[in-house]
Amino acid sequence: MKKHIHGGNVYQYQNCIDFSANCNPLGTPEGVKAAIAASLDHLADYPRVGCAPLKAAIANREQMQAEQIICGNGAAELIFSLCHAKKPKKALVAAPTFAEYEQALDSVDCEVEHFFLKEEEDFRITERILKNLLPGLDLVFLCNPNNPTGLLIDRELLTQILEKCTELGIFLVVDECFLDFVECPEEHTLKGMLEDHRNLFLLKAFTKRYAMAGVRLGYGLCSDERLLKRMEQMTQPWNVSTMAQEAGMAALKETEYVKEGRNLVFREREFLKEKMKELGLFCFPSQANYLFFKGPKQLFEACVSRGILIRDCSNYPGLGEGYYRIAVKKHEANEKLICVLQEVLKEESL
Amino acid sequence: MKKHIHGGNVYQYQNCIDFSANCNPLGTPEGVKAAIAASLDHLADYPRVGCAPLKAAIANREQMQAEQIICGNGAAELIFSLCHAKKPKKALVAAPTFAEYEQALDSVDCEVEHFFLKEEEDFRITERILKNLLPGLDLVFLCNPNNPTGLLIDRELLTQILEKCTELGIFLVVDECFLDFVECPEEHTLKGMLEDHRNLFLLKAFTKRYAMAGVRLGYGLCSDERLLKRMEQMTQPWNVSTMAQEAGMAALKETEYVKEGRNLVFREREFLKEKMKELGLFCFPSQANYLFFKGPKQLFEACVSRGILIRDCSNYPGLGEGYYRIAVKKHEANEKLICVLQEVLKEESL
Repeated sequence: MKKHIHGGNVYQYQNCIDFSANCNPLGTPEGVKAAIAASLDHLADYPRVGCAPLKAAIANREQMQAEQIICGNGAAELIFSLCHAKKPKKALVAAPTFAEYEQALDSVDCEVEHFFLKEEEDFRITERILKNLLPGLDLVFLCNPNNPTGLLIDRELLTQILEKCTELGIFLVVDECFLDFVECPEEHTLKGMLEDHRNLFLLKAFTKRYAMAGVRLGYGLCSDERLLKRMEQMTQPWNVSTMAQEAGMAALKETEYVKEGRNLVFREREFLKEKMKELGLFCFPSQANYLFFKGPKQLFEACVSRGILIRDCSNYPGLGEGYYRIAVKKHEANEKLICVLQEVLKEESL
Repeated sequence: MKKHIHGGNVYQYQNCIDFSANCNPLGTPEGVKAAIAASLDHLADYPRVGCAPLKAAIANREQMQAEQIICGNGAAELIFSLCHAKKPKKALVAAPTFAEYEQALDSVDCEVEHFFLKEEEDFRITERILKNLLPGLDLVFLCNPNNPTGLLIDRELLTQILEKCTELGIFLVVDECFLDFVECPEEHTLKGMLEDHRNLFLLKAFTKRYAMAGVRLGYGLCSDERLLKRMEQMTQPWNVSTMAQEAGMAALKETEYVKEGRNLVFREREFLKEKMKELGLFCFPSQANYLFFKGPKQLFEACVSRGILIRDCSNYPGLGEGYYRIAVKKHEANEKLICVLQEVLKEESL
């Protein structure tokens, strides 16, 4: 079992601008903070078991039935409770991808097969994956857009993957946590396929969309209601705090904020891509709110010493040294990042 | 698998005074609320993985090493992660007791044996239990004082249980979440036995001691550091929210509040016991911040209709209809409760 190593460690690297975690660059909405503040007088009570009002609000936003929604202490909790409920014997995960899929699979002693992405294919999930979908496989985790690459899976291929999984009785989990920050997410989400595919589970987070990683709130969508019930039985009944439930309901009202955050990301992502190209850094063609790029060794340390925290991706399975990820932030921060990168690349003999 | 049914459902029974959950009657300390309010500007960041400063603060309070502490999203999460990490095949739980032990054991398909408490023994854990500690048993959950009865396990018996468990290789979990509200908790805690008993795990909560059930924060103490590491690997790395970590550190400074809450509980517990005796209600000799008693059927509904929410204990394994639990609250609330009970017992033909 591997150690947990992730981005977002602002505690160890205080005084740094954090480009290592990928949340909405606008920061936590005031409405969310106000909702938590308003909940302070009710913290002596247990949180509401089952999160009914929050589920109703999510159902309304997602145009789903509340029974097809499960809430968690962050989407990360749901990854674990799903593994505990499904108890897969053999699973497939891409490499590189978000580390918690494998961590959760390890926790139920599941054999994990890697689908190694290739640099010459821009680390894209290609139709090569179809050959890995074989009888005997119980579960597949996909991240769309993938983390750390920011690349979307071709829609047609994704449909083929789902159909092949269905045919072979493989459970397919698609993590759409970053889908809010791609253009036209409605063209990429598999939500429309849920009704006819009980073997499909979609992961969604409040964390990124509303920049509230510290609150812990995520949800899952699935038409296999018995599975959701089983997942809830595998988890304590009070897993979502009162503050998180209130924060979630307030967040869902922040439609202008989401729109604004998306537009900022689209604008600044192009700015960063252009500037990094000028600096001679190779950026993979991310469509998300973060950029995956190649850089010299020790770039992480050089940036940290100048007040910029980036994500060193060398600990992702399938990657080695020299791969990095940065979040798209507000313009001023992005300019600071570019300045630091420029300085580092010029002055250091990396 | 049973449905989650618990006390504390203030959402369904709004406008009721809640006697069904057992927290410090003083309510959430202002210092805790202030710490959460101060954390609102940092919620875009992920919570600190591993909770190092909180663990250090707990270690200081408990006079333990930080490596022997594990923090959870409420003590309830730890019950589940412990079961996931230990994967017991056969376990023993008392009946009646807190429902989540069995729920968590069910979630890992563990065979659960019940040690049925007897009314003629005041539902006390007696030395009869020693005969149930047999080879082949992997794990025992005990709650001290027990929930819903409020009864402590005799200290000498508890030591015998621990020694027999150690001899037979049985892992013993003692839930001390309510121990803060008994007199002389230091005479009852098994903390001093941890160092020499790697098969002992103690559960502790912030929930009750600081009336912060809505925040979700609990911890466990164990000298088997490898087990704690394994439990952490079975759980997402961000399970304790930023707000909960800040709240916990603030709470540990509230020593006067704890003292005051304890004194209030001791005083009011005697008041309630006396008044209930006057009403002809039989109270078991609880030593905790709640009272377990026998009453007429439909007492729950009769109280709810008068604005008092009590805990109907009929869904505890080992109990039938006519058993109830109430929390010890502030004097004014307790008087209201007594008034309502008086009224109900007089007027209703229950």
